[in-house]
Amino acid sequence: MSRKTLFVLILLAALTPAAQTIFASEEAGGQAGGAGHGLNPLVLIGVALVLLVAKLGGELFERFGQPAVLGELIGGMLVGNLVLFGVTAIEPLKTDVVLGALAEIGVILLLFEVGLESNLGDMLEVGWSSLLVAVAGIIAPFFLGWGVAAYFIPDEARLAHIFIGATLCATSVGITARVLKDMGKLDTRVARIVLGAAVIDDVLGLIILAVVQGAIQATAAGTTLSLASVGIITLKAVGFLFGALLVGRLVVPHIFRGAGKLEGRGVLLALAIAICFVLSWAAAGIGLAAIVGAFAAGLLLEEAHIERMPGRTKHDLHELLTPLTTILVPIFFVLMGLKVDLRAFARLDILGFAAALTVAAIIGKQVCSLGVIDRGVNRLAVGLGMIPRGEVGLIFAGIGATLMLPNAAGIDEPVINRATFAAVVIMVIVTTLITPPLLKWSLARNASAPDNEPLPEPERETAEEAAERTSR
Amino acid sequence: MSRKTLFVLILLAALTPAAQTIFASEEAGGQAGGAGHGLNPLVLIGVALVLLVAKLGGELFERFGQPAVLGELIGGMLVGNLVLFGVTAIEPLKTDVVLGALAEIGVILLLFEVGLESNLGDMLEVGWSSLLVAVAGIIAPFFLGWGVAAYFIPDEARLAHIFIGATLCATSVGITARVLKDMGKLDTRVARIVLGAAVIDDVLGLIILAVVQGAIQATAAGTTLSLASVGIITLKAVGFLFGALLVGRLVVPHIFRGAGKLEGRGVLLALAIAICFVLSWAAAGIGLAAIVGAFAAGLLLEEAHIERMPGRTKHDLHELLTPLTTILVPIFFVLMGLKVDLRAFARLDILGFAAALTVAAIIGKQVCSLGVIDRGVNRLAVGLGMIPRGEVGLIFAGIGATLMLPNAAGIDEPVINRATFAAVVIMVIVTTLITPPLLKWSLARNASAPDNEPLPEPERETAEEAAERTSR
Repeated sequence: MSRKTLFVLILLAALTPAAQTIFASEEAGGQAGGAGHGLNPLVLIGVALVLLVAKLGGELFERFGQPAVLGELIGGMLVGNLVLFGVTAIEPLKTDVVLGALAEIGVILLLFEVGLESNLGDMLEVGWSSLLVAVAGIIAPFFLGWGVAAYFIPDEARLAHIFIGATLCATSVGITARVLKDMGKLDTRVARIVLGAAVIDDVLGLIILAVVQGAIQATAAGTTLSLASVGIITLKAVGFLFGALLVGRLVVPHIFRGAGKLEGRGVLLALAIAICFVLSWAAAGIGLAAIVGAFAAGLLLEEAHIERMPGRTKHDLHELLTPLTTILVPIFFVLMGLKVDLRAFARLDILGFAAALTVAAIIGKQVCSLGVIDRGVNRLAVGLGMIPRGEVGLIFAGIGATLMLPNAAGIDEPVINRATFAAVVIMVIVTTLITPPLLKWSLARNASAPDNEPLPEPERETAEEAAERTSR
Repeated sequence: MSRKTLFVLILLAALTPAAQTIFASEEAGGQAGGAGHGLNPLVLIGVALVLLVAKLGGELFERFGQPAVLGELIGGMLVGNLVLFGVTAIEPLKTDVVLGALAEIGVILLLFEVGLESNLGDMLEVGWSSLLVAVAGIIAPFFLGWGVAAYFIPDEARLAHIFIGATLCATSVGITARVLKDMGKLDTRVARIVLGAAVIDDVLGLIILAVVQGAIQATAAGTTLSLASVGIITLKAVGFLFGALLVGRLVVPHIFRGAGKLEGRGVLLALAIAICFVLSWAAAGIGLAAIVGAFAAGLLLEEAHIERMPGRTKHDLHELLTPLTTILVPIFFVLMGLKVDLRAFARLDILGFAAALTVAAIIGKQVCSLGVIDRGVNRLAVGLGMIPRGEVGLIFAGIGATLMLPNAAGIDEPVINRATFAAVVIMVIVTTLITPPLLKWSLARNASAPDNEPLPEPERETAEEAAERTSR
């Protein structure tokens, strides 16, 4: 014990003068800080700030029954616009290469997770109503969004209008699933149809994104765009998804059987991420978005494959991925928020564009109710449940901001410019915010309808699984 | 069932022509892949490759009773030198900014983990023998390394010689702990002294690194280096570590109590990483290495603080950090390997330098045995157990490669250039490889000595905890 005391005294003696020096001294090397270093220390404080904004913003929104992703986005918007009050410290973060790369890796892992959660079996299970709802909910908003864009920003290239139509297709039913869960209606027919349609929408949305992106790249490269080449791009996108699944089904079991013989730590996680990144790279290599590859990777990693590694399940992989997505995914959404220029909200034309887009997004999804062929289902609730755009719309807009197209004057500019980006963000926020109250009202209105009857066990489990996504 | 069959048929119909198109078509956009994208797809395939090399290399070495980190390093060396056989595809990875940043974030998280595993209490617990062993094991290799560097590379700046001395100070006892564990001798006096000394070495090594780095930055900035300014840099380094601990002890409990009220997911992990990154940034800001801040952050996150978040323990934080370090830490070691130019091994002068450094590293640590004041302890085993340099030596060398100093001609060049880097890597590999056989021989020689008697329970636990690090 006396030894210990002596140690403490020595440490304290060393500490007292040191403590005085540390913050006072403006000694050599003071500002030279990261000079010569590979990693800009700015990235470190940037990530710390982003995590803080994400968790506080997310918490605040969840307290009000809203999804955390909106809190991250709006938190980012507030911090990013501190520059309006003369705070310029945040500005370098908006364009930092490393922070941007971390955000993109976050989205890739997010889509990988979404892919892991959905599988072909589920998609075939959900039935015709879900398929029709999904297809109707893609077609209507696509053309409405295209039309709105053509009306409000006529000077932009036609492909830019089409891209905006594509961003309106996505459905992000996390929030709907949460509302249904909170109301104890997760195991109803409405829930099953909406959640099933959302899975199909993920696939269809990615295919549309791939096609539009391919068309934009072809145009940017000076190739004239024929109907035939659109067809080829479509085939390429569909072919990539299903080709990856086919090849995966043949190859992946062998890889996992081999990996099962490795005893080192972290083999499952490293292998899964390697497969995800290889397919993301392959997708980017053939001109698709990297997230298409990540989604395909998630789809092809089936339970049966993972179980070839002794003692490992898909659930383990989920648990291992969670810390990575917890840190990286919010970086994407906060960064998206940082890039929104709030001054756009003071421009009437942008607000008008945003309002029109929002209306198109809402009305477009009401067409979904026509797709419901089951009898006695609350069609209105299905249409309302498909409204929120959430993260998928943002991801599309983010990709659009990095694609370049020549404008009327022949100068390259981003497909989604700052003003359009602000309008899309407003659309995403509004559609996500209005869904819970509308859905609650609709479901409460006919509480005795047959769609409130619980489904048999196996299907109930699927719906609960899908609802897991809400907590993201 | 018939519905399902129909679906499958539709999917197959879509798939057949698509599968033919996908790899055949060299359509527009084909190579334009990631053009305009923020994230270079190269990073994705790079990370996938690095993870593959890391897991296969690590596995192979672990099978032969060697630490995984050597497998990652040597795997990286082999892949990185494929360029000698005309394979140039790897070259862009060596200098990629994003991959480099991921590697550095990996090291920061690694040192954060090391800090979490050690705490002030443990360091006071290990007693005088450990302290003396640690100090002797720092001083002797430091001056021997300095001397060897001055002899072999006389044209380099004196501070470069001193920096090489510093890289010889570090002790990486993971491999020693593993050997002791495998021989069932983890709860002996030898093990306690060596593992205790290693923890103290972590702190002393970081302080030396901070001082040398500060001196280099002062010189690079044109400031003349007086003994007084070295004293101030030393105080700054010590002051930062203990200042961070003091401030942390005052502030962190409040932060965690506040965070305990948040219900969102991932709050513990996000908060811990934010604290780690803020301190890393602060350390870089006052001219220290970022890893010094990361280590301090790990030290100050004590069990008592984390338990202020209901239902959370330090163990949870460890489990959450593991997936992040599983992916990011190997990126660092493989990248270090990639950067080793094997042609250096064909140069007699570099091999001579490497051999001399290795001898200095081994002999220097034998001085440790003089520090053992407990009676009847196998002193030789203590000295041998301190030999491996492992990851810490590599991290120091990596930092040295990013620091610039004017040479005799006044032109800035890296403190650790390519040749010196290769020599240091050889030293790290050899010291790590020879330890297990030497240690086994020494321990088997006097198997009946009192140092083989198990210690009482509480201390046994600490030793086992420290041995956990071996698996890294």
